[in-house]
Amino acid sequence: MWFYETLHSEIKLGIKGRLLHKKKTPYQQCCIYQTKNFGRLLLLDDAIQTTEYDEYIYHEMLVHPALISLYKPKSVLIVGGGDGGALREVLKHPVEEVVMVEIDKDVIELSKKYLPSLSKGAFSDKRLGLIIDDGAKYINETGKKFDAVIIDSPDPVGPAKSLFSLKFYQSVFNVLKAGGIMIRQSGSTFLQSGELKSNYRKISKIFPYAAVQIAAIPTYIGGFFSFILGSKKINIRRLNEKNIEERVLSLDLKTKYYNSQIQKASFILPNKIKERIK
Amino acid sequence: MWFYETLHSEIKLGIKGRLLHKKKTPYQQCCIYQTKNFGRLLLLDDAIQTTEYDEYIYHEMLVHPALISLYKPKSVLIVGGGDGGALREVLKHPVEEVVMVEIDKDVIELSKKYLPSLSKGAFSDKRLGLIIDDGAKYINETGKKFDAVIIDSPDPVGPAKSLFSLKFYQSVFNVLKAGGIMIRQSGSTFLQSGELKSNYRKISKIFPYAAVQIAAIPTYIGGFFSFILGSKKINIRRLNEKNIEERVLSLDLKTKYYNSQIQKASFILPNKIKERIK
Repeated sequence: MWFYETLHSEIKLGIKGRLLHKKKTPYQQCCIYQTKNFGRLLLLDDAIQTTEYDEYIYHEMLVHPALISLYKPKSVLIVGGGDGGALREVLKHPVEEVVMVEIDKDVIELSKKYLPSLSKGAFSDKRLGLIIDDGAKYINETGKKFDAVIIDSPDPVGPAKSLFSLKFYQSVFNVLKAGGIMIRQSGSTFLQSGELKSNYRKISKIFPYAAVQIAAIPTYIGGFFSFILGSKKINIRRLNEKNIEERVLSLDLKTKYYNSQIQKASFILPNKIKERIK
Repeated sequence: MWFYETLHSEIKLGIKGRLLHKKKTPYQQCCIYQTKNFGRLLLLDDAIQTTEYDEYIYHEMLVHPALISLYKPKSVLIVGGGDGGALREVLKHPVEEVVMVEIDKDVIELSKKYLPSLSKGAFSDKRLGLIIDDGAKYINETGKKFDAVIIDSPDPVGPAKSLFSLKFYQSVFNVLKAGGIMIRQSGSTFLQSGELKSNYRKISKIFPYAAVQIAAIPTYIGGFFSFILGSKKINIRRLNEKNIEERVLSLDLKTKYYNSQIQKASFILPNKIKERIK
């Protein structure tokens, strides 16, 4: 049976697969499919969120460049991330505390059941504080401060919309410690270039250092996929190469995509993307 | 009207478009569609070859890393490349002669008519010698030697199959001058990883230096798209960064993807891809 991702209006990805589970949660429609090229995959409102075979690219790039820049951060906040992949990568660092705020508890339950290789047991780690709530609300109300805030949200449609506003980024800035870093995904550089541009502009307004990082992720069609980092003190694009290498070696991250050279190369942008964020 | 690329058996790209032209040539089925996200595009045997909006990525990366490594090569052979995009980029370098051997003259005629922004008049350049013939046959029979051989062919199905063999790469080696470089496309690193692996192995057997280069190209789905370079003398991954920068500046290539930093970054591979070519 073929199913289609209908995120973009005039282009779609069709994948042959078998529907394993379908559930309408209070926030979105969740489907799990079994496929050949991607293993099992999770669709939220008909947009591919993550797949067993290529999720590591997204999750490694969402986590390691920021945490290696900080080097041994103590406390990390994940907004969203219900599939557990970002959490798994964060816990490879010697953090003391991870708070995850996910709005839809069904995403966590379905992922634990159907995509166990994503969280790999990370949800039972003692360092995790799991909160089922709206991430924007939590950030406004918490008194805690974090070294890193990782925004692992779907596209700016549906429940994640509030996580793409200037006001939200200001709140993120406020819950970060003095040297803190935030990172978020910002979609396809080719098919969602407006999303990259507008969010880069917002984050640049608030953070002294902002940078765009790119990676090619098979299930996210449209050329390079992008991430935006906002940093209070560290110029993330200017880290010393030798330091990066030593840090990466010392942590033994067991990554399948990320390595110390990728840390630098992922900030090098093609001319068209550079222009777009000028 | 939706049409679908059916290159892969369990995954397909659907694009909304209007069919402008359809022709069965002696070698393949050619279709030209008008689309919103990609402008006009060329399908050969239902595989997307090139599109107006993202062709620059493929053509710049197929040409500039090799020619910048050589710096001011005099003679270049293009095998295939009937759409004219590679030719356009080669002619930005101060070459004295370009020979293009394309098997299917209809691809040239259709591209000139429906995709004029690809060749941008390059087919009337006096430095071009255009030959309608099988590239493998030409390479075996010619007495000429070239600084660079660019293999701009479709996937190893249909008329291009012979351009992926060990024997062919040996012939390419033979028509290259002492310091010469060849480059070819080698498909998606995720969906066609066997193609990358086997061709890298063949090219490594024959050339003292072989390297894989990656780029994200929206219409070629499946994560990073790859290219393999074979070099007789120059260690293409170890070029001095300052030299590259000076060379790129001196030529004023007016590129939309490629720049001197991309020259280096495109050789930096994610762990999984590194493993695949070990």
